[in-house]
Amino acid sequence: MKNRELLARREKALGKGAPLFYREPINVVRGEGVYLFDDTGKRYIDMYNNVPCVGHAHPHVVEAIHKQVSTLNVHSRYLHESIVRYAERLSAHHDKSLTTTVFTCTGTEANEVAIMMARCSTSGRGIICTDAAYHGNSEEVRKLTHTPVGSKGEVRSIPFPQTYRPLQEGVSEAELTELYLAEVRRVIEEFTADGIKLAGMLVCPIFANEGLPNIPAGFMTRAAEIVREAGGLFIADEVQAGLCRSGRWWGYEVMGFIPDIVSMGKPLGNGFPIAGVIAREELVNLFRASTRYFNTFASSPLQAEVGNAVLDVLEKEKLCESSANVGAYLLSRLESLPSRYDAIAEVRGHGLFIGLEWVSDRTAKTPDKSGAAEVANRLKDKGFLVANAGALGNVLKIRPPLVFTRQHADMFVNALDKVLQDMYGNS
Amino acid sequence: MKNRELLARREKALGKGAPLFYREPINVVRGEGVYLFDDTGKRYIDMYNNVPCVGHAHPHVVEAIHKQVSTLNVHSRYLHESIVRYAERLSAHHDKSLTTTVFTCTGTEANEVAIMMARCSTSGRGIICTDAAYHGNSEEVRKLTHTPVGSKGEVRSIPFPQTYRPLQEGVSEAELTELYLAEVRRVIEEFTADGIKLAGMLVCPIFANEGLPNIPAGFMTRAAEIVREAGGLFIADEVQAGLCRSGRWWGYEVMGFIPDIVSMGKPLGNGFPIAGVIAREELVNLFRASTRYFNTFASSPLQAEVGNAVLDVLEKEKLCESSANVGAYLLSRLESLPSRYDAIAEVRGHGLFIGLEWVSDRTAKTPDKSGAAEVANRLKDKGFLVANAGALGNVLKIRPPLVFTRQHADMFVNALDKVLQDMYGNS
Repeated sequence: MKNRELLARREKALGKGAPLFYREPINVVRGEGVYLFDDTGKRYIDMYNNVPCVGHAHPHVVEAIHKQVSTLNVHSRYLHESIVRYAERLSAHHDKSLTTTVFTCTGTEANEVAIMMARCSTSGRGIICTDAAYHGNSEEVRKLTHTPVGSKGEVRSIPFPQTYRPLQEGVSEAELTELYLAEVRRVIEEFTADGIKLAGMLVCPIFANEGLPNIPAGFMTRAAEIVREAGGLFIADEVQAGLCRSGRWWGYEVMGFIPDIVSMGKPLGNGFPIAGVIAREELVNLFRASTRYFNTFASSPLQAEVGNAVLDVLEKEKLCESSANVGAYLLSRLESLPSRYDAIAEVRGHGLFIGLEWVSDRTAKTPDKSGAAEVANRLKDKGFLVANAGALGNVLKIRPPLVFTRQHADMFVNALDKVLQDMYGNS
Repeated sequence: MKNRELLARREKALGKGAPLFYREPINVVRGEGVYLFDDTGKRYIDMYNNVPCVGHAHPHVVEAIHKQVSTLNVHSRYLHESIVRYAERLSAHHDKSLTTTVFTCTGTEANEVAIMMARCSTSGRGIICTDAAYHGNSEEVRKLTHTPVGSKGEVRSIPFPQTYRPLQEGVSEAELTELYLAEVRRVIEEFTADGIKLAGMLVCPIFANEGLPNIPAGFMTRAAEIVREAGGLFIADEVQAGLCRSGRWWGYEVMGFIPDIVSMGKPLGNGFPIAGVIAREELVNLFRASTRYFNTFASSPLQAEVGNAVLDVLEKEKLCESSANVGAYLLSRLESLPSRYDAIAEVRGHGLFIGLEWVSDRTAKTPDKSGAAEVANRLKDKGFLVANAGALGNVLKIRPPLVFTRQHADMFVNALDKVLQDMYGNS
């Protein structure tokens, strides 16, 4: 009743269609580590939220925010040591070519900067993306949202690379890699034919929104080479993949290539708005000279100290190693499910970012979005928060704060098994 | 020396051209109320920063941030009462037609939403702005930055309305109003001729970036009528003008008109990233249905509690009234300057947002940007932070936190008088 009244007030105050999770939305009131608590006191293990990467309400981050807002919170046109130190520390965790950062507040703003930077540097306008991506909510970045293959204009897409529903059935993985690379070349040629100079290619290195597909081997490295040979720059959107989520510091390390430009976001501030773009010094200098970019709330002492505190925890608690180890353990436990439940066609992922491919018919590979959503709702009732996502909405997305442990993994797998038994019967 | 080393590190870490104030940038380390302190312990009266509207490090806002980050900091797809309450409270300070809010993190994002909302609602694309505006740093919103009159495309400008350097000399104010309105009609006709349907007009209601010009009477109300008659919506960018800065809650109240869509930003969170768009319910509903807009860090319990804390202080400390009263007092003291110094051609403003028009030749109205910059640098040495701005860079911009008092105003006017005597001799 209380929640129904709140929903009615919410519709008036925020508008109809402000997104909400679950058939019966939950009223979350407190967070601690991997746990969220609702207004009835019910405890949930949070297996959805990648933003609070070092755990909800981490005391070291809370203390850093409190100390800095009590001291100073201004813009970046005064000198501050902390933002310089934060940029240097971020750079130290990247490939050595990536030295210089433009801070923003959101991932959308980071991708705006990344695209502008590629365009400034190449004097091109053409951007290649994939056909089931999401990189942000601004007018320009929205052009990269589920861009159909064959679209005209300055943003054009390729079918996202994957082995599960491949571009062509019955070919070897090496042949499949070539087929997807041919798509990159096709878009470049079409840009050329239409007089649009290439600026670059922008993808999430682990294709998080597409549903964490297994990528035909070598695709990313070769795609980056092809783009560079055509005069473009390769942009990795690490907003979801980055900062230890994948078991490595950055998704591009998992994929074994080095991007020219990297956008970062969500986890950087453990929930405080921090995002940014890191690139080679000359790319950033040219971007700054061309745009005179300024962002009121970015590069602030507050962003810096929160960002530094998150890095402190990641380093001290060795959460990158933990993401790799606990993620591998969870993946191995989940890998037993497809042999027992036909609904789960594939289990895949990197570190603590795992996807389960839900199908209603395994031979036809028929995506089962409602099945995945049903599981998410049932898991919520059992105290585990996950969601369905992916290009077809049929991928159960598992992405807990990085302080998630093997014990939590065991609890989750047992709960999931019970839900699967209830839905699909014993096996 | 220490600052020179820091500057070198800053160039490498953030890139050349990351903006900095003053010939010798200051290293700010602490803020309290209207004061900022540098690394040598020197105290400055901050007369520039509009973001920390209730004063640097206000204890009530600090406490609200600390309490909420210790408790919960998640996204908006769970139910939270606080964000609904914050939206309701913001709405209560607006015209009763403005009921429903889309939160974002930055003013740029708010103007992105405002423009998309106008376009969704009208199915038009054409946006009218002024020729010396700045509304944000994204690809789309940058189209409204210093857009030359006569530009083609979906964003077109009019010369910004003003009485000091009017569109035509020697006409009455009423005639001048008609001349600027004719510019609005001209752009609408050119859009029609070029097959571009009008979406709306977006301006700062007090033309802050243009340099706070005096506006020919009745321009805003009539411009809004003309835009609506042509099927467009009128968008007020209150990112700078809003939240008591002008001595009223919103700049549109000073100008005596009611916009269809209002974007808000900078001061909402006293430095914490909060921004948003408020409009009629049906406009927001249509926007949400068309875009399925989601912003990771926006509409969060943390944004809500910080925003609520800022409203608490504004209401309890009666800072809107104070902005009007102290602003009027400061304006009246500054108004004595033009009769004593030829360099100051005009003193104008609203509440605690005041501009001084700097000229090298009063008859020719020759803008003197370097004079205004020189004064800003000298005032810094005397412990007062201001900056030069405006369409021609020759307007000394005075815009302190709203806790600025008459005593501070007296100190500032005395210091300014000394600087003027040093630069221009006794008068």
